[in-house]
Amino acid sequence: MGKDKKLVEAITSMNDDFAKWYTDVVKKAELVDYASVRGCMIIRPYGYAIWENIQKVLDGMFKETGHENVYMPMLIPESLLQREKDHVEGFAPEVAWVTHGGTEELTERLCVRPTSEVLFCDHYKNIIQSYKDLPKLYNQWCSVVRWEKTTRPFLRSLEFLWQEGHTMHATAEEAEAETLRMLNTYAKFCEEYLAIPVVKGRKTDKEKFAGAVATYTIESLMHDGKALQCGTSHNFGYGFAKAFDITYTDKDGSRKNCFQTSWGVTTRLIGAIIMVHGDDNGLVLPPKIAPTELMIIPIAMHKEGVIEKAEELENRLKSIVRVKKDVSDKSPGWKFSEYEMKGIPLRLEIGPKDIEKNQCVLVRRDNREKLVVSLDEIETVVPKVLQDIQNSLLEKARSSQNAKTFVATNLDEFKNKLDEQCGFVKAMWCGDVECENKIKEVAGASSRCMPFNDQEPVSDTCVCCGKKAEKLVYWGRAY
Amino acid sequence: MGKDKKLVEAITSMNDDFAKWYTDVVKKAELVDYASVRGCMIIRPYGYAIWENIQKVLDGMFKETGHENVYMPMLIPESLLQREKDHVEGFAPEVAWVTHGGTEELTERLCVRPTSEVLFCDHYKNIIQSYKDLPKLYNQWCSVVRWEKTTRPFLRSLEFLWQEGHTMHATAEEAEAETLRMLNTYAKFCEEYLAIPVVKGRKTDKEKFAGAVATYTIESLMHDGKALQCGTSHNFGYGFAKAFDITYTDKDGSRKNCFQTSWGVTTRLIGAIIMVHGDDNGLVLPPKIAPTELMIIPIAMHKEGVIEKAEELENRLKSIVRVKKDVSDKSPGWKFSEYEMKGIPLRLEIGPKDIEKNQCVLVRRDNREKLVVSLDEIETVVPKVLQDIQNSLLEKARSSQNAKTFVATNLDEFKNKLDEQCGFVKAMWCGDVECENKIKEVAGASSRCMPFNDQEPVSDTCVCCGKKAEKLVYWGRAY
Repeated sequence: MGKDKKLVEAITSMNDDFAKWYTDVVKKAELVDYASVRGCMIIRPYGYAIWENIQKVLDGMFKETGHENVYMPMLIPESLLQREKDHVEGFAPEVAWVTHGGTEELTERLCVRPTSEVLFCDHYKNIIQSYKDLPKLYNQWCSVVRWEKTTRPFLRSLEFLWQEGHTMHATAEEAEAETLRMLNTYAKFCEEYLAIPVVKGRKTDKEKFAGAVATYTIESLMHDGKALQCGTSHNFGYGFAKAFDITYTDKDGSRKNCFQTSWGVTTRLIGAIIMVHGDDNGLVLPPKIAPTELMIIPIAMHKEGVIEKAEELENRLKSIVRVKKDVSDKSPGWKFSEYEMKGIPLRLEIGPKDIEKNQCVLVRRDNREKLVVSLDEIETVVPKVLQDIQNSLLEKARSSQNAKTFVATNLDEFKNKLDEQCGFVKAMWCGDVECENKIKEVAGASSRCMPFNDQEPVSDTCVCCGKKAEKLVYWGRAY
Repeated sequence: MGKDKKLVEAITSMNDDFAKWYTDVVKKAELVDYASVRGCMIIRPYGYAIWENIQKVLDGMFKETGHENVYMPMLIPESLLQREKDHVEGFAPEVAWVTHGGTEELTERLCVRPTSEVLFCDHYKNIIQSYKDLPKLYNQWCSVVRWEKTTRPFLRSLEFLWQEGHTMHATAEEAEAETLRMLNTYAKFCEEYLAIPVVKGRKTDKEKFAGAVATYTIESLMHDGKALQCGTSHNFGYGFAKAFDITYTDKDGSRKNCFQTSWGVTTRLIGAIIMVHGDDNGLVLPPKIAPTELMIIPIAMHKEGVIEKAEELENRLKSIVRVKKDVSDKSPGWKFSEYEMKGIPLRLEIGPKDIEKNQCVLVRRDNREKLVVSLDEIETVVPKVLQDIQNSLLEKARSSQNAKTFVATNLDEFKNKLDEQCGFVKAMWCGDVECENKIKEVAGASSRCMPFNDQEPVSDTCVCCGKKAEKLVYWGRAY
């Protein structure tokens, strides 16, 4: 056990130092490596395989709802970025500028895309003429660059991978419906695949996207009680469309404005998975998104028939689950620790005694429960256990989120509760940005969202100024 | 037919002006649109769907041979790019430089990656210690930027999409084997999926990749007789590894050099598909890579039962082939032209008379052949016809390439043949770069490759200087 213990001890405990625990997991589970450019990350095979699984599922969901993928250039001329006033104010301070091409100085600076609204608008202007051309439902998978001061792998980096949907519609109602449809798609994906419960709601004006009429968001709570924005969906009304002169001829021959949305999720979701499900032994992956769902580890594998049996089991299971076996010469204990660190949902141990009894041992990553299973039943038991792990992770995360969601009716209570234990604070707000700023100043919390209407008000006065208030807001200290 | 004719007439004939034909097809088939940055392209849904199919097949081939995907940063510090002398000389003149992040001037310029050898090396240095860590077989799907002077959609653009494989090996032999294995993978992919025959061979020193010991290439011939490099695979020896100090401890405890390869194909492959298979009616897509293999077009579709029958056929076929139906209110003739322009391999016409006779009409895009097929047999006939189209396209392209491959034994003959009809010229070369330069100057042709050993020499003296020559070279005027 000496070696195995060393591997485990190498991680900081999350209760001692959550931030250090996080970076330890990210490194030891071989998700990322640091790059030679400040704030950029190398996404290693294991981390990228998680992203590929996220992409595959989400891309399928987008296509099912009629979206098509495109690719826009990564470079945006400064004049194009400046076309929509609020947008350029929001993004210009944090873009990377290309000023030279080869040995020549450019006559106009180009920025590396921080987001692509203006590129999509510039294209939509060319291809939308008639109501028959609408809606346009486009999506793009790419990387973007934002010149952030402080960075952390997956959570905030100079460059990150994401998808950005950009759609154009004939009416304001259709654009609003699309904005909400995609938010709901994200929420469904987070809960069903990542086992992460989210609060759906609308951002305050202070927190909304540069240039948007309304920004909707899904917010989740990490293990340390801090909030993480997991995805956003924006309704732009016809602001950009007007700035770019995108109109269409309706059935009656009249010329009308187009209405626009955009929506995105990023590699930050991998950060959420780590911080919602992980523990002091490392990563814990929800089976539906795990690159490997089941790892077969032969015990006493130099005994006759053990490796053959491991291979036989792999072959029987490989059309059912994502399975691998480890027949390297490391000790079983070392392998256990390694795959716990990597968060593989389930391991299957098989040794000479098991073979004798026609059985194997399944060990769950989430709760370490051991199950002795007849080899005749593995094809039915393994998927069932994986589904159970998936369900348990969601339930556990939901309980944890509920336990860390508090109500406050005045600012003292607000601050005290958050200081005692970090989490969501549900509190009423008058709608005044000054109260929002004061809450930030006093309690260090930002408004995460105004949740959708399935939630009851918790009082009738603003938690900050005491004036009449009808808006319920989720607040939190955020990543 | 008025409208339909207009649509067809809108393309320049390839015999009148091949370059204009090409850009007409690219635009009318809705593959790309021009972007606001010079030389960049917007890849539209139809073009991107072709790229997605290419990605899916190639990615499967890479994974089958043990390669893993990663993601490296898009920005490279100038000092890192300069680490390998030949490499920086080759690429520095054609990179885009980021000099400012937000409002700050950077202390060191960053280039937008033109290729990622130095990033992979910088990472491999951190993660390779022992022979157990080798080989490392990584691949990345991303976009790169090269500051080209003249650009054309897919063929040469400032930014393009590609995959770049980067591998590290314990021995020179393994690196060479990997380089050739991936070249063969590309050749197989081009022939089996894109129906494009290629000549495999090695580049001369003049034409090889900046920093490589050997560059291998697959070369194909376009409809106009010009050559197109479709993919390359490079053996770097230990040049980069040395510059980056990447070594490993072997079994015997000794410290040894690593050996490196890289290999890539790009969205240029879409340009090859257009120029190898296209005709004066537009694009012709090989079924295996076509976003839609079969388009169902109802005739007299407002007659009772026609739309229902079209839908029934779509449902019957959709688990077998990529099928769509067009029930829009455009005329059938208009639809025929539109889907010919888009190169959909096969269309199925179904009208009231067909339904009466329990039959439909299949029309092939490649040779316009019409087949009357019993509705009872469509599930077996459609895939068979698609496979036949796939085979025919390859055969036709191979015949065309053979018909345009000439032999020359002196420079006059070389030039005359190429002036008469553009194509590959097979000719002997002494190995002297001066002869290579002179051939370029006199006949406008570059060396495409020294084909692998399955080819007989065509004489024993250099086509240029007349000295003794053992090297057979394929020459051509190239894109």
